[in-house]
Amino acid sequence: MALMKTNSLIALLTDFGPQDGYVGVMKGVILGLAPDATLVDLTNAVPPHDVLTGAWILHTSWRYFPEGTIFLTVVDPGVGSKRRGVAFQVEERAFVGPDNGLFSYVLVDATPDRVVSLDNSAYQLPNPSATFHGRDIFAPAVGHLASGVALGQLGKPVEPSSLVRLPLPRAEWRAGVLAAHALHIDGFGNVILDVEPPLTDLILANSATQALVGWRRVTQHVRTYSEASKNECALLRDSSGHLAIILRGGSAAQMLHLRRGNEVRITGLRSPV
Amino acid sequence: MALMKTNSLIALLTDFGPQDGYVGVMKGVILGLAPDATLVDLTNAVPPHDVLTGAWILHTSWRYFPEGTIFLTVVDPGVGSKRRGVAFQVEERAFVGPDNGLFSYVLVDATPDRVVSLDNSAYQLPNPSATFHGRDIFAPAVGHLASGVALGQLGKPVEPSSLVRLPLPRAEWRAGVLAAHALHIDGFGNVILDVEPPLTDLILANSATQALVGWRRVTQHVRTYSEASKNECALLRDSSGHLAIILRGGSAAQMLHLRRGNEVRITGLRSPV
Amino acid sequence: MALMKTNSLIALLTDFGPQDGYVGVMKGVILGLAPDATLVDLTNAVPPHDVLTGAWILHTSWRYFPEGTIFLTVVDPGVGSKRRGVAFQVEERAFVGPDNGLFSYVLVDATPDRVVSLDNSAYQLPNPSATFHGRDIFAPAVGHLASGVALGQLGKPVEPSSLVRLPLPRAEWRAGVLAAHALHIDGFGNVILDVEPPLTDLILANSATQALVGWRRVTQHVRTYSEASKNECALLRDSSGHLAIILRGGSAAQMLHLRRGNEVRITGLRSPV
Repeated sequence: MALMKTNSLIALLTDFGPQDGYVGVMKGVILGLAPDATLVDLTNAVPPHDVLTGAWILHTSWRYFPEGTIFLTVVDPGVGSKRRGVAFQVEERAFVGPDNGLFSYVLVDATPDRVVSLDNSAYQLPNPSATFHGRDIFAPAVGHLASGVALGQLGKPVEPSSLVRLPLPRAEWRAGVLAAHALHIDGFGNVILDVEPPLTDLILANSATQALVGWRRVTQHVRTYSEASKNECALLRDSSGHLAIILRGGSAAQMLHLRRGNEVRITGLRSPV
Repeated sequence: MALMKTNSLIALLTDFGPQDGYVGVMKGVILGLAPDATLVDLTNAVPPHDVLTGAWILHTSWRYFPEGTIFLTVVDPGVGSKRRGVAFQVEERAFVGPDNGLFSYVLVDATPDRVVSLDNSAYQLPNPSATFHGRDIFAPAVGHLASGVALGQLGKPVEPSSLVRLPLPRAEWRAGVLAAHALHIDGFGNVILDVEPPLTDLILANSATQALVGWRRVTQHVRTYSEASKNECALLRDSSGHLAIILRGGSAAQMLHLRRGNEVRITGLRSPV
Repeated sequence: MALMKTNSLIALLTDFGPQDGYVGVMKGVILGLAPDATLVDLTNAVPPHDVLTGAWILHTSWRYFPEGTIFLTVVDPGVGSKRRGVAFQVEERAFVGPDNGLFSYVLVDATPDRVVSLDNSAYQLPNPSATFHGRDIFAPAVGHLASGVALGQLGKPVEPSSLVRLPLPRAEWRAGVLAAHALHIDGFGNVILDVEPPLTDLILANSATQALVGWRRVTQHVRTYSEASKNECALLRDSSGHLAIILRGGSAAQMLHLRRGNEVRITGLRSPV
């Protein structure tokens, strides 16, 4: 299958930040095993220990990478504990990382073909540390996969249904109002809500719908940022299909004092029976 | 021409920041189309929506990249509006991005050979979103270019003179004083002024010249950072040839409370007739 | 030797930060000379001018990169002054950068085979600036090395013992107490101390040992982050083998108001005779 090519594409997602050598060292380990691999940072700026944000970014991204891509994902507060390290294949791509919920959205998106726990020490660095499995276990697993080792070699098979799935936020109908939440706040201050298609489109198609954030109302509906009035937030279908609150040329999150997890009520739409 | 090689170099400049998967996703799209391309981040930390800073960084950088380089540049507050997406060739390099002034300096530096608007949907992702043309239109255009598609295939020819050019800051003589501006403040706090060679060198060669920032004077002239006295700002020819105000081991911008666009008056030089 | 391969791996370490095009431009220069090189960012977020932090990150990282790797390291407050630019080989890897102490730890780790000063202008950009040797001298040196030029071609031989070595922080016994220091604070807020193996392990094996930070005591000893009680700092062997103070799910540095260089006293261990 596609993963067996030597010229592999590897995408990294971590909470390691830019200021240490942690990401660089993992890349050194990988390239020592698979010198021809192409490495891409998906992001290394997941907030520290924020497994759910890591999971969300993976969700909105992974299918834009070609078949054969190997995802090295490390947001790993439980490193060295009994949480498993795993690797699995899904839709001709591979994922490697801690089994702590980081794959929660991917596992909703698709069903893995094959899952293993990373317990074969032949494919780890010698004497792995208790605190940096990214370097000592996950990066070597990825490097070996990229150099042609079969996923099944990395360790014992794992029942796919046993993989950790975190409860995922999802807007709920409550007395005729859709109680949504700020799922993610991006670097521009756009607030992405836990409202997916086709509900996103239903809401935007009805000009009576509003978002309520405390006592503030968001009434504008726009298709693009530049359609929005300045200094007034608006509702928009974001590039992942989710409903989002945006502010033209500014940060909606800042204007509305919204943080991840905060409630946003959507009114004006009849709840589905 | 050089662009037709399969082993293309692609340089990215965006305002997407590190914390989302936006840059990574564009790279996934590109590498799906051109698996052998080499990707380099020029910068992804242009201040949000700051087209002019993006244009400036491009200006000081693009000729250091080899012929054949494709620049993917996305600072795009008008995404989804009527602003065009364009691609053009200049000095054996290609540029792809929104036609909103991001190329203003490049178009002063050189004259494009060929310009097209990105309207051929065969080279876009299916059903492009209204809010993320970086992923749905620009990255595919770059990926196709890198895989050997001719630039002319991407869309209809555009008259080069119709490309958007922003008014660019430029120091002006006013009553014997050169009224300059802080054009860019770099990560070290160096303040780069809108004064270019040969004027930079004329100013530095004359030991009587001073920079006035409000009531403060910068009188030191240095060739290198380490020549400067500590705790006192100095004038220096920066690596782009522009006149700059620097502080040894510190931030000149912070010491002088300078922000982009602020005026800096240069005295002591006779204005050219 | 390994360095002569055309498909070189190049690792960058700088204090240039993300917001300018400085790192990108160096990569453009390198890839113009060595189009097949693989570039990896070790980190570009060394605090501005902080040579010792750059040296430390290099120390904990370089041996994880494969033989043949070329390190381009630029933390260079003395750019353009009489400080030398150098290149050297050690354990089949090469290092290129300013001779200002940035290699202090690497030179403790191993002895270079061959050192040259970068004075051969044939391998520099024409008319190098006085303020950006990263672009004009170091990147070209790396690009030429990666394309097969022998290190000895880059300039005159230098006596290895003449390379600048900074005094390195090291914990000291003082009246039965080990006076250690915060050597590095990583992106998670972990505080890494200047205590190395085997002393790290001796301290952690003795349950009576404590760290004193002002009037606060750190008494917990843990092997992994998840073993630690919440809201209480703990001592741990970090992934580089150094003793570290950590806080589960938070920043130990913030909780203890520790900054780099601050003293941390370790008690409860008998000093070795």
